[in-house]
Parts: sequence; structure tokens; C-alpha cells
Amino acid sequence: MTLPTAPFNLQRPALTHCSNCGAVLESRVPPGDGHHRLVCPACGTIHYENPKLIVGCLPVWEGKLLLCRRAIEPRYGYWTLPAGFMENGETTADGAARETLEEAGAQVNNLVPFSIIDVSYVHQVHFFFLADLANLDFSPGEESLEVRLFAEEEIPWSELAFYTVIETMHLYYEDRKAGKYGFHNLQLRAKPVP
Amino acid sequence: MTLPTAPFNLQRPALTHCSNCGAVLESRVPPGDGHHRLVCPACGTIHYENPKLIVGCLPVWEGKLLLCRRAIEPRYGYWTLPAGFMENGETTADGAARETLEEAGAQVNNLVPFSIIDVSYVHQVHFFFLADLANLDFSPGEESLEVRLFAEEEIPWSELAFYTVIETMHLYYEDRKAGKYGFHNLQLRAKPVP
Repeated sequence: MTLPTAPFNLQRPALTHCSNCGAVLESRVPPGDGHHRLVCPACGTIHYENPKLIVGCLPVWEGKLLLCRRAIEPRYGYWTLPAGFMENGETTADGAARETLEEAGAQVNNLVPFSIIDVSYVHQVHFFFLADLANLDFSPGEESLEVRLFAEEEIPWSELAFYTVIETMHLYYEDRKAGKYGFHNLQLRAKPVP
Repeated sequence: MTLPTAPFNLQRPALTHCSNCGAVLESRVPPGDGHHRLVCPACGTIHYENPKLIVGCLPVWEGKLLLCRRAIEPRYGYWTLPAGFMENGETTADGAARETLEEAGAQVNNLVPFSIIDVSYVHQVHFFFLADLANLDFSPGEESLEVRLFAEEEIPWSELAFYTVIETMHLYYEDRKAGKYGFHNLQLRAKPVP
């Protein structure tokens, strides 16, 4: 395997070249399409850009929630629910369980859909599952500084990383108070970070 | 605007060249990552591939469902619920309503999440909303041969286009019989077309 000759570039890649043949792309509305797309003038490939799914869990143990403190940007040092980009070849629940294992070293069971939050201004959809933490054998993964269980009165609300996490946790405590967990679908409007 | 010199290529593009600089990509596991990714040896860009969201509606008018007969491949000539790829910048419900307008010329109100079906073997998640058809002013869009309302006993079950549509419609009629519409999350295993 050849080593890259450049360091890894962690920025979102610009879509300027055709991934099929390498030619420089042009913006056009293909016939029968209502949107401008990036089209390759050399091979004709149309490059569609679509929203990404973020999948994660609310891992619960005896009424406490398992949170991770982020070891990466954005929001380094802030607390979050374990979640991340869904990968090809997995289901939404598999992805949520995988992210929980990767970020919190934790195993979860009984995943039930809890919230889907549209974050249209960054082309994302965040999907959280309510889940039972399988045991107390958890530990921070490479993307976490620490992982711990919080009772409701201990939640560091002002140190949470993302609005979708805050909204999902509020809904969890509201449902718990009401004695019944529902499924929630909401839309976030553009805001700065919390 | 320059005309493409090649006809539009409607195939899924191969990811062989860097969309950032046009160089030929290599497969590597970036540090801190558990997956092989396509990485650019020239500029270091990592190219992630993630599942796509398909959003659509079950448009209901006095207990009848609005279906479209497909004018495009795959499944040309088969009946389907209006649905398609979610676009950047829209919410899931906005996308479902847009697809209903584009494919069926129909306006819908009161969208409520109904089913999310993982189709992991094609890297897709299908998300259907239950919706009220706003009026009877509908007509086939460019991607449909015809559009019509079906009572339950008229549904052409053997001429439906996709398993996610069939499953969603079965769930709809089951819920209707039970007198209560729920939210459903299921996983499709790899199958041929119906």
C-alpha cells in the first residue's frame, strides 16, 4: 500500500472534480431535474449531494444517562450522547450501537427509535435511539476524553455539545416524567453552537 | 454555460478520482478510523461514503391512497408511493412533500412520521410520512406515467415497485384496522425486486 504523499486533510472536500474521471465539474440543471447539479463535461456523470444521517443512542442504566466528553473538534471538551455518521452497509440501529461502542466503549441492547431531528442548514438528519446499557464495562474511545453516567440533577446542561443532543435529552426527561416514551420528530432552525 | 461534451451519464458514479483535486484515489485506513476509506495521495482528502435517505408520503384522501406508476427505471411501469432522494437544505418532511408534488403533482398536509426502513444492502434508509392529500388536483409528473387513488381492495399488490413501499402499505392497513397509527422501524434483508 502506498503512503499518501500529503498529510490527511480532515476538511470537508470541495466538489470541484469528477470522481469518475477527474475532469473539472460544471454546474447545470440536467433535463427532467429541478435542481442545479455538478455535472462532468467529459464523461457526463451527474454528482448528487445529499444529506447525511447521524445515528446515536441515549444509553440508560438505572435511570442514569451515559454521556461522553468530546476529545475532538467541533466542541472539544463538551459533553454529548454517543453518535456519529452512519456507515454504508449498516442499519440505523447497528450504526447507533457501533458509535456507542466506539465512543463510550459501551454495549447497548433494546434500541428503540426516540428522536429524528432535521438539521437542514448543515444537511444532516440526527436519529437517536433509546437503549439499555448492557453493563457497567465502559471506557472512553479515541474520540472521548471521559465517559460517565449522570443522574438528571447532575446533567451539565451548559456544557453539552450540540442542540440535537440537548433537545433529545429534554424530550427524554419530559417523557420520563409523563411515564411514556414516544417518538419525536423536530426541526432545528439555524443557530450558533449552544 | 458550456454544454457537456458527453451525454448525461445516469449511472452511479465510480469513486476513483479525488473530487477536490482530480488525482486517482487509494484505499487506506486513516489514523483513528476503523474503516478503509478512499484517500487522495495528492491532497490528503478522505472521501467518506454514507447511506442516502429516501423520503416519501402515504397521501390519503377519504381512506384511499395516492399511488404513482413509474415512468423511469428501476421498476418502470410499476406502482409506488411518491418518494425520492432527500436534497441538501430541506427537512425530511419538506423533502417528502416535494417528492409528492414532483411525482404526483399533489399537495399534502399534516405529515406525520410513519415508517423508517433500513435497506442496508443498497446503503439507503427509506422514511415515509402519513399525510393528508390537500385536494384532488393531482397529475403525473415527469417521472410518472399515471397517478390515481386506490381503495384498499383495488391496490395492485403484485404490481408494486419496491419492498419498502409494500411493507409500508401493509403497516398502514394493519394500523388502520387496529384504529391507531404508530411509528414503525424495520430492516429489509437483501432480496431481489418483488
